[in-house]
Amino acid sequence: MLVLNNDEISAIIDMPTCIAAMETAYRGMSEGRGVNRRRSDTLVETGPAESGGIYSLKSMDGVSPDLGVGAMRINSDIITYPEISGQRRRVKVPAAPGERYTGLVLLFSSETGEPLAIFPDGVVQRMRVAAANGLATRYLARAETPRVGIIGSGWQAGSQLMAMTSVRKVERIRCFSPNEANRKAFAAQISPLIGVDVEPVSSMEAAIEDADVALCATSSIEPFFQADWLRPGLHISSIKRSEIHPDALRKVDRIVIHSRDGAPILAMASGVEPPAADRPDGGALLDVAEFKSAPLLADLIAGKVPARQSEKEATCFINNIGMGFQFAIIGKVVYDRAVQAGAGRDLPTEWFTQNEHP
Amino acid sequence: MLVLNNDEISAIIDMPTCIAAMETAYRGMSEGRGVNRRRSDTLVETGPAESGGIYSLKSMDGVSPDLGVGAMRINSDIITYPEISGQRRRVKVPAAPGERYTGLVLLFSSETGEPLAIFPDGVVQRMRVAAANGLATRYLARAETPRVGIIGSGWQAGSQLMAMTSVRKVERIRCFSPNEANRKAFAAQISPLIGVDVEPVSSMEAAIEDADVALCATSSIEPFFQADWLRPGLHISSIKRSEIHPDALRKVDRIVIHSRDGAPILAMASGVEPPAADRPDGGALLDVAEFKSAPLLADLIAGKVPARQSEKEATCFINNIGMGFQFAIIGKVVYDRAVQAGAGRDLPTEWFTQNEHP
Repeated sequence: MLVLNNDEISAIIDMPTCIAAMETAYRGMSEGRGVNRRRSDTLVETGPAESGGIYSLKSMDGVSPDLGVGAMRINSDIITYPEISGQRRRVKVPAAPGERYTGLVLLFSSETGEPLAIFPDGVVQRMRVAAANGLATRYLARAETPRVGIIGSGWQAGSQLMAMTSVRKVERIRCFSPNEANRKAFAAQISPLIGVDVEPVSSMEAAIEDADVALCATSSIEPFFQADWLRPGLHISSIKRSEIHPDALRKVDRIVIHSRDGAPILAMASGVEPPAADRPDGGALLDVAEFKSAPLLADLIAGKVPARQSEKEATCFINNIGMGFQFAIIGKVVYDRAVQAGAGRDLPTEWFTQNEHP
Repeated sequence: MLVLNNDEISAIIDMPTCIAAMETAYRGMSEGRGVNRRRSDTLVETGPAESGGIYSLKSMDGVSPDLGVGAMRINSDIITYPEISGQRRRVKVPAAPGERYTGLVLLFSSETGEPLAIFPDGVVQRMRVAAANGLATRYLARAETPRVGIIGSGWQAGSQLMAMTSVRKVERIRCFSPNEANRKAFAAQISPLIGVDVEPVSSMEAAIEDADVALCATSSIEPFFQADWLRPGLHISSIKRSEIHPDALRKVDRIVIHSRDGAPILAMASGVEPPAADRPDGGALLDVAEFKSAPLLADLIAGKVPARQSEKEATCFINNIGMGFQFAIIGKVVYDRAVQAGAGRDLPTEWFTQNEHP
């Protein structure tokens, strides 16, 4: 059984391969070969009582019989709610030894049951989010070389641009994020990686105006994409269900979502307040009828739902919640490449299996 | 991070310690300190199409802030449905290398999030099932030295007798299972371990008649415990929701169950038939009103529900579904003892944590 770290994983996977693997596996899922288990969060209070800290044991899983693997993704997080610049923020604390986070993917064979690999989720997490948005862009954005505007300059923004440039040749990219230093540093860092100059701009409108594709890649829990930013032919790509204003969603011609699961299943000790975005009733979009009945990305890829129908359609993909199924797909890419490259530490499989009938 | 195997775990834990740890933690859970996440099974077809084989990725988790740990228990099983002696049986296939099964417990710190240990679930699985039934027996069985009848001679039966003899001094034990050789071998093997002679008998009635405690520890998916076997003062202990006939349940004076979760949450690829016992509507007991409204073991232990009230009450505990929470409790016992004993293989924690914000 292989143990891999994020550096090793970064060195052996690439965005186009992840997108191709996701495209094939999502088609299989739409055709009934492949299944996803809804995310669950188990929450208790932790730390000093007045700190408001939460321990969250989060998991999701999925199996792709086409690929012969299943994956369980587990996050074991310490979460605090400090007040930063007058706003209550949700902050994951790297409380493990060495100021580290704990997020793991366990990959299993669906043919023998055996564990194939364990690795941290940091790199694959970004790949699978961005690959899903990239796939949606492939099917929904206009075919010509698009102009791209991106809101956000965090780690999700970087992988979103990698996915964008994997599915389309891009004419130009403009980037806004509130902090000028951040957006400049992001533009300088990402431009050489994707082979397109990213131009930092000083407002959301400046990033979006004239764009053919608007990438929303923020950690905002309040909608910021406004209805009057919509134009014919625009494709909006969002990484969560809180970025797009409900009025904008109602005006869009075509919405595609990632999963019908909505919010995670919460198991909570008494006194615990779940994060607003994770509440079953949380997220402005849930009241929008167009969102509730929107088709799924997997069905779009499988051809059960039409792709873009005209140059004038305004389209929107919302990556509303992740799927454990994605970790099975990207996990299989990682595993195959690692075996080929001889990467990682190979531990005896019998350490993680047993003679005892469980 | 510790990697332990079943032999190492067997050597460092014992039933009385597990029962004591469960008693304390269940009380905490009843008082709002501790939470359990409902079991989920992700199912796809596997193997040749005509084989009817299923791959099952099953998980459950729970957190005890009192103990400072959370645990995720994962089973990665190949399941087949062969016809054995004219009956369709559910059989887990040891398909991992070396003809082994894959069942794992991951133990995390709820104070730092870090992974503390990974170990197979085989030994702790038996301990936690039996410890729950043992605790129920402590609160519900008559106080005097009981006569015990047990139905079943499998691995659950052995740990049930260990738990029984941990909570009560036992006068005598009679055992029935359908295969004469099996029940004789079981009696010979278990008697020295528990310090009580187990007498194999040739019928269920012979095992149960005159008993003060009837232990049902079978893999039967059909009810076999009959209503006319009930007597005043009897305590029935069952390890699943299908062993006791609904008519018997309706006649019992007091029922306590393990969890209100009922059946697991199923995520299934198209064409997969879940095992009958795991279906939301499966199991005869679900139609019995007394079962649906029965109090919980944790509340019995916490004193929110009265224990046995008279010598004449006929009581029944049904361990209707397992809890991930149990693996946190027993996992903590295992971890503390292993650290103390220097048992297992200590892998670098940084292999299983990361700098990357997940």
